[in-house]
Amino acid sequence: MGHSYQEEFTIPSDMVDVTGRAKLTKLLLHCLFVSETQALMLGASDAYFLEEYGLVWIVTDYEIDVYRLPSLRENIRIETEVLSYNKIFCQRVFRLFDKENQLLLEFSVYLALMDFKTRKVSLILPEIGDLFGSTFVKTIRRSPKMLPLEKAEQQSYQVRYSDIDMNGHVNNSIYLDWAFEALGYDFLRTHQPKKIQFKYSLEVAPGGRVTSGFVREDLTTYHEISSNDQINAQAIISWVPVED
Amino acid sequence: MGHSYQEEFTIPSDMVDVTGRAKLTKLLLHCLFVSETQALMLGASDAYFLEEYGLVWIVTDYEIDVYRLPSLRENIRIETEVLSYNKIFCQRVFRLFDKENQLLLEFSVYLALMDFKTRKVSLILPEIGDLFGSTFVKTIRRSPKMLPLEKAEQQSYQVRYSDIDMNGHVNNSIYLDWAFEALGYDFLRTHQPKKIQFKYSLEVAPGGRVTSGFVREDLTTYHEISSNDQINAQAIISWVPVED
Repeated sequence: MGHSYQEEFTIPSDMVDVTGRAKLTKLLLHCLFVSETQALMLGASDAYFLEEYGLVWIVTDYEIDVYRLPSLRENIRIETEVLSYNKIFCQRVFRLFDKENQLLLEFSVYLALMDFKTRKVSLILPEIGDLFGSTFVKTIRRSPKMLPLEKAEQQSYQVRYSDIDMNGHVNNSIYLDWAFEALGYDFLRTHQPKKIQFKYSLEVAPGGRVTSGFVREDLTTYHEISSNDQINAQAIISWVPVED
Repeated sequence: MGHSYQEEFTIPSDMVDVTGRAKLTKLLLHCLFVSETQALMLGASDAYFLEEYGLVWIVTDYEIDVYRLPSLRENIRIETEVLSYNKIFCQRVFRLFDKENQLLLEFSVYLALMDFKTRKVSLILPEIGDLFGSTFVKTIRRSPKMLPLEKAEQQSYQVRYSDIDMNGHVNNSIYLDWAFEALGYDFLRTHQPKKIQFKYSLEVAPGGRVTSGFVREDLTTYHEISSNDQINAQAIISWVPVED
């Protein structure tokens, strides 16, 4: 158990899609902002790690379980904590609840520390785990190994200026958008993600182009984001049909 | 003068670009959400107009004056009112202020009412203006006439599922994103919009492709968003250089 932090949030209209439900990637982005606020309050902001240790956090995996996506103007509660860490990875969990305290969504972000200068992965020192009140564990369970796709349907996307975040990188949530987009309007309007396992392996350069490929087996889709013949990210998503 | 409404807002990380300033289109989207909240409180929501009159609001023009774009976690105040209306158009104004009460941005949205069934423009009745406490005027000054561009540099964009809003339409802010995007990463990183005049003429269909063309003359850019050989929107934007 880590130090727990929570905020309330009302779903704004620019976060809602044509089905009347929150757009998942925008909701995740807001969760990450909530965690930045907690980190600031704990004296453990990104700026602190860079100045004090010369380290930056990198996201390696997302795991998301969706029970119900909130709707326009719905008031939700977002709880977050850095649940646990081992020598290399830490797991930050977000739990979203509705007014009746029903769990809407559980979202885990797996992070590692990278030396800003050498670009090498750095150990997570106990004093870093302590900042978040996080528990040391031997093993952190992450996404399953994902094989390269064969015979994938592909779409190509230009990286947009608006995809770039304040760190000058393509925001992590954009990779998930590219995976979703490749499935097409009709599929997305009639299906909702139930479980997402997302693995990041290589950053996409600003200004470049990416290919978003997928293979669909019933209600499971397998995704691969690639650029310059290298895999940038992979995902497995399971879906449920929803009323149009 | 219309009924005035205001909300405070803290700029979240997903609204900030690589220059550390708020992304204008995301900021405008939040302003529109604030105006929806006011309309709800005044009993004048979009749903009310549709149910009571069979009418929907359509945006015809945006006019934006930017004095300073707020930065990450900056607390701002958003004031809005439906300033005035004539028989066809109304003008809603947003004014954004910082903690020192300095004007950051002024944003006018010009709207008309359309009959949902016949798709024809409908008169704005005095009782509708009254709902917003708005002043009747003879003339509403709108964007200047914009000519079709010649020898424009062009970029092509696929409409994404995430571009579609809860009404099933490409969100108005996306047209502005397409205009910006065509200018390229290097220009956008080193320039900030100072004044924007944006004119909407025809909706882009979901699932389609658009062409975003522009001509640049010093620090003024002229834009044209088109699809299927028809102009969907036009803009004139003046820019100021900013520190990278």
